Amino acid sequence: MRVEIVCFGSELLLDKVNTNSVAIAEKLAQLGIAVSQVVTVGDHTQDIERALRESLGRSSVVLTCGGLGPTFDDLTRLCVSKVIRRNLVYSKSIHKKILRRFKSVRLPMPAENKIQAYLISGAKEVDNAFGTAPGQIIHWKGKSLILLPGPARECIPMMDRTILPYLKVKYPVAVSKRLILHVYGYPESKIDEMIMPVVRRNWDRDGVKVIFGILAHRSIVDVKVTAQGNATDRIRKTIFQIKSELMETLGDWVYGENDDTLESVIGKMLSTSQQTLALAESCTGGRVSNKLTDIPGSSVYFKEGVITYSNESKIKLLGVKKKTLQKYGAVSENCASEMARGVKDLAKADWGVSVTGIAGPLGGTREKPVGTVCFGVCSKRGVQTEVKNFFGTRTEIKEKSALFALNLLRLELIRQ
Amino acid sequence: MRVEIVCFGSELLLDKVNTNSVAIAEKLAQLGIAVSQVVTVGDHTQDIERALRESLGRSSVVLTCGGLGPTFDDLTRLCVSKVIRRNLVYSKSIHKKILRRFKSVRLPMPAENKIQAYLISGAKEVDNAFGTAPGQIIHWKGKSLILLPGPARECIPMMDRTILPYLKVKYPVAVSKRLILHVYGYPESKIDEMIMPVVRRNWDRDGVKVIFGILAHRSIVDVKVTAQGNATDRIRKTIFQIKSELMETLGDWVYGENDDTLESVIGKMLSTSQQTLALAESCTGGRVSNKLTDIPGSSVYFKEGVITYSNESKIKLLGVKKKTLQKYGAVSENCASEMARGVKDLAKADWGVSVTGIAGPLGGTREKPVGTVCFGVCSKRGVQTEVKNFFGTRTEIKEKSALFALNLLRLELIRQ
Repeated sequence: MRVEIVCFGSELLLDKVNTNSVAIAEKLAQLGIAVSQVVTVGDHTQDIERALRESLGRSSVVLTCGGLGPTFDDLTRLCVSKVIRRNLVYSKSIHKKILRRFKSVRLPMPAENKIQAYLISGAKEVDNAFGTAPGQIIHWKGKSLILLPGPARECIPMMDRTILPYLKVKYPVAVSKRLILHVYGYPESKIDEMIMPVVRRNWDRDGVKVIFGILAHRSIVDVKVTAQGNATDRIRKTIFQIKSELMETLGDWVYGENDDTLESVIGKMLSTSQQTLALAESCTGGRVSNKLTDIPGSSVYFKEGVITYSNESKIKLLGVKKKTLQKYGAVSENCASEMARGVKDLAKADWGVSVTGIAGPLGGTREKPVGTVCFGVCSKRGVQTEVKNFFGTRTEIKEKSALFALNLLRLELIRQ
Repeated sequence: MRVEIVCFGSELLLDKVNTNSVAIAEKLAQLGIAVSQVVTVGDHTQDIERALRESLGRSSVVLTCGGLGPTFDDLTRLCVSKVIRRNLVYSKSIHKKILRRFKSVRLPMPAENKIQAYLISGAKEVDNAFGTAPGQIIHWKGKSLILLPGPARECIPMMDRTILPYLKVKYPVAVSKRLILHVYGYPESKIDEMIMPVVRRNWDRDGVKVIFGILAHRSIVDVKVTAQGNATDRIRKTIFQIKSELMETLGDWVYGENDDTLESVIGKMLSTSQQTLALAESCTGGRVSNKLTDIPGSSVYFKEGVITYSNESKIKLLGVKKKTLQKYGAVSENCASEMARGVKDLAKADWGVSVTGIAGPLGGTREKPVGTVCFGVCSKRGVQTEVKNFFGTRTEIKEKSALFALNLLRLELIRQ
């Protein structure tokens, strides 16, 4: 079974990185389905039709992405219709859905959107919970042609809700299970070295094929384990065994698995122990609070955040001492310590976390260059502070600081 | 002249996002060269050879990326040799370079690396300043086949240093200039409808070819205009003319062009007028502040932010009246109004902006469903409030609310 992804969109050939194809491939990997080729072409009828024709010629499953919008450069429907010689058929129920979607946001439906109510003859509609363009599943000469919209927030949920369940039944393949462990703050090569003995021991166990992978993004390293075989219970057992071997090696370095994030793990610990949290951010400018409040239910433990960019506001809101600012400066462990304690008291929370530093590009000095960031975590056990030097652009320094602050809090929560 | 990029690497079909193809395409765009297709295949001889054969069949320039490493799955050299029927030839000088590179990091050269000293017969070596694998430029049947290594830090400098100068001489092409206008808050199809007359009038002007594109991401729609031709001044004039036509049609809907963001545009307005800003966020949890502080130099105008998740903190920090909360609730224009005024006063800023709403997934009611968000913007001219209903996940509602708040502030700043 050969699977290809065809992506449409001139922007993907110019200035938009294609993240969809990998996101779709990762979803397919959950079913043990591998993608053989990704083709990306611009919004030109000739290129689209040729790409479709060739991919359909080579593969049993073709997933397309993009070109289902309402505008003149959304050509997928027309080109598919021409390549597989099937008409486009108007669907009243889809038209109604689109009208409803516009009504719900109190906008009139532009005439252009009506084209989105057309399906390839014989196609199964794939409901789009997050946009107006439905997906389509088409059976053609024993092959499956699946049309998905381009925006990730629309096509990825479709994969989960409709396409994976469909493919699982239509193309039953070897069972496959996947585990991802997330590690914060250590270089990829170090993790690689540490887990190598586990990898070597586990290439193949009892007829279960195990594939290891390491992927670093920013300060986070993901260790990926995929087990494939025929017996579900043996696969489960293998993953379980490998997980405990990896955890033994990596310990607290692992902050979570699969969908966990630093903020979700912290959220779980705070909810479980019924404790609350307050944030005092300077250079991160709200980035830590934003991450923490991305978690559903965070309003239970996230009491308050302040973004104290100026010395004035550090004194006024957090009770940082003028003397501390004069003697050590705003970017100092002393200031971070007073900020963490100050915000904990202000919000009457169990935990106070602070970040103060120089995100740049200006504001650095010889002693405190751009990227110097101080952290504080305050609880009833007192204040813990740290100072770090990060490299990168302003946004990168903000992001690295936010992750460091979250991880510091996580470690303190474990130790409490 | 048709140009294609072919990328090799099984990781690109599984879990590594392909950033090279866009980076290469953007470099080529500097010469006015457009990429027509990107093909990505895994490390399998058959797929690589077919992709090469097809791309060479269709195009006059093919750039490949990856598969020049020293390991068993680096197959590009061998496959190219087979497809274009030319031998691999050992180069003593390249071998020496590789040896020197290993010596400089005090490592012995593994035997595997010797394969990197082989060039396709007749190829021009492309020096690699950041790795061991040289690139290759091959002339074959009037076409150019360019082999580049996979790591971005190696292939992108090669583009700048060798490939672009080579292509510029070999294929002197039309000049090209690009304009992107960013629009907030209107559906793609509506913008499409509005600009259609401008598009129709301007397909072709004085021998300048104009390509229009529309790209929607979240609540933002980008209108892209590319002008190609032979005369630089005529292209400039065309872009200038089209820009004024589009601005006449879209007016204040356009918040910026090219690299502008809502937060950078707001930053410019505040800096220029020497005014300051304070933020009171509830449901956005710091997202608006985070965006605003992503802008270098924002510490000049961003005075303070507070994230008041609880009623308690809205009362304590912002002076929201208990009565207001009891009578209208925290998610009300009344509360948003008091929050905006409160944070303006607290920070002694010129502008106070507030967001209070229900990001979900829990907390919605019949009258105020998930996605109900109230906004306030306070200046010396008084308070302006708005209420909106957004759809989506918690993070999407936060993001949409943040963009809406920024745009509301932008419009008030224009009107002041």
